Amino acid sequence: MIEVHAFATPNSVKVPIALEEIELAYALKPVNVREGVQRAPAFMVLNPNGKVPVLVDHVDGERLVLTESAAILVYLAEKTGKLLPERGAARARVFEQLFFHASGMSPAFGNAGFFKRSSPEPQPIAEARFTGEAERILGLLDSKLANQAFAAGDDFTIADVAHFAWLWRRQFLGLTLDGRPNLSRWYDAVADRPAVQRAIARVEALVPAA
Amino acid sequence: MIEVHAFATPNSVKVPIALEEIELAYALKPVNVREGVQRAPAFMVLNPNGKVPVLVDHVDGERLVLTESAAILVYLAEKTGKLLPERGAARARVFEQLFFHASGMSPAFGNAGFFKRSSPEPQPIAEARFTGEAERILGLLDSKLANQAFAAGDDFTIADVAHFAWLWRRQFLGLTLDGRPNLSRWYDAVADRPAVQRAIARVEALVPAA
Repeated sequence: MIEVHAFATPNSVKVPIALEEIELAYALKPVNVREGVQRAPAFMVLNPNGKVPVLVDHVDGERLVLTESAAILVYLAEKTGKLLPERGAARARVFEQLFFHASGMSPAFGNAGFFKRSSPEPQPIAEARFTGEAERILGLLDSKLANQAFAAGDDFTIADVAHFAWLWRRQFLGLTLDGRPNLSRWYDAVADRPAVQRAIARVEALVPAA
Repeated sequence: MIEVHAFATPNSVKVPIALEEIELAYALKPVNVREGVQRAPAFMVLNPNGKVPVLVDHVDGERLVLTESAAILVYLAEKTGKLLPERGAARARVFEQLFFHASGMSPAFGNAGFFKRSSPEPQPIAEARFTGEAERILGLLDSKLANQAFAAGDDFTIADVAHFAWLWRRQFLGLTLDGRPNLSRWYDAVADRPAVQRAIARVEALVPAA
């Protein structure tokens, strides 16, 4: 069975969401990032980059250990023929959004959160840089979703899975959907999907009771 | 003919490198980012995100305007069946490196450069954060390249194109390959490829003489 090494983090939750949408069975293995387990030697064997999630599957009789949440989404979509158009402009639009997510949204959101909440001393230029970039990205997505139902077009794809995962943790990052009506409508539509709710419940259950 | 709107920047040069490797003809259209042309209204019609490169091609009789350098690499590889394995673990490894590039290397390098060279006031915690992350990423790549010829395995792929493009501008970012023997060997091998040299010459010719 597919194994997913993960925790209740934005990048982690992408993988269970995709697996629930695709209806593939999987075992979730907790990696408690609050205790730094992702940088412990046992985990670094799976991912020398020290990050969750990690997928373990078998391909052509060989064990495949795969890192990078968006690469895992592409792998699962191609394995099953779901959540990613097979060809043409519709397919290119999904990759465009996935790389916009990885190179734009994810570092802007992550660094906005760091400089607001975790920096040992205030770094006002850095905080303004990443908060401003996060807001700009929210605005770009809101404009795009004025004209289409989902991030990459008319259908729900792995691009929606990726964007949703980071927006799911927006409160922690000090971000809001207020004043972004199209993005809010899209967020609510994704959050209402039963597969998304099942995935969130499963990753939240990985967090030990305080 | 394929159009590439670009300048002599790390993300831009990826696209001509792939096109030269694949041997597809293309017209390069300069977008002078030193003068901010990428944020001018005429360019924002092509890319509301205000960034180079942008590819313009025709697919199924329709005009396709595609942004995000790594998404363009995937598109060109799939269009031609080159620089990206068709299936299996070898294919997954290319996507793993492309998303490691987009979410890890590219923001670390870009922000290291910003806080070293362009921040209006020193932000020592931010500078240390991104410089340290850039060095960590160089170390991860050096370790990987101890055991394989190219970024995603034994063959040259679009993952090498992506990594090479940012390392090509490492001096500007204050980074070095010193003490990274495997990464240095790989860099020199990529830089020696005739297609890579043709692409660099073409993007450098976009810069007006001072």
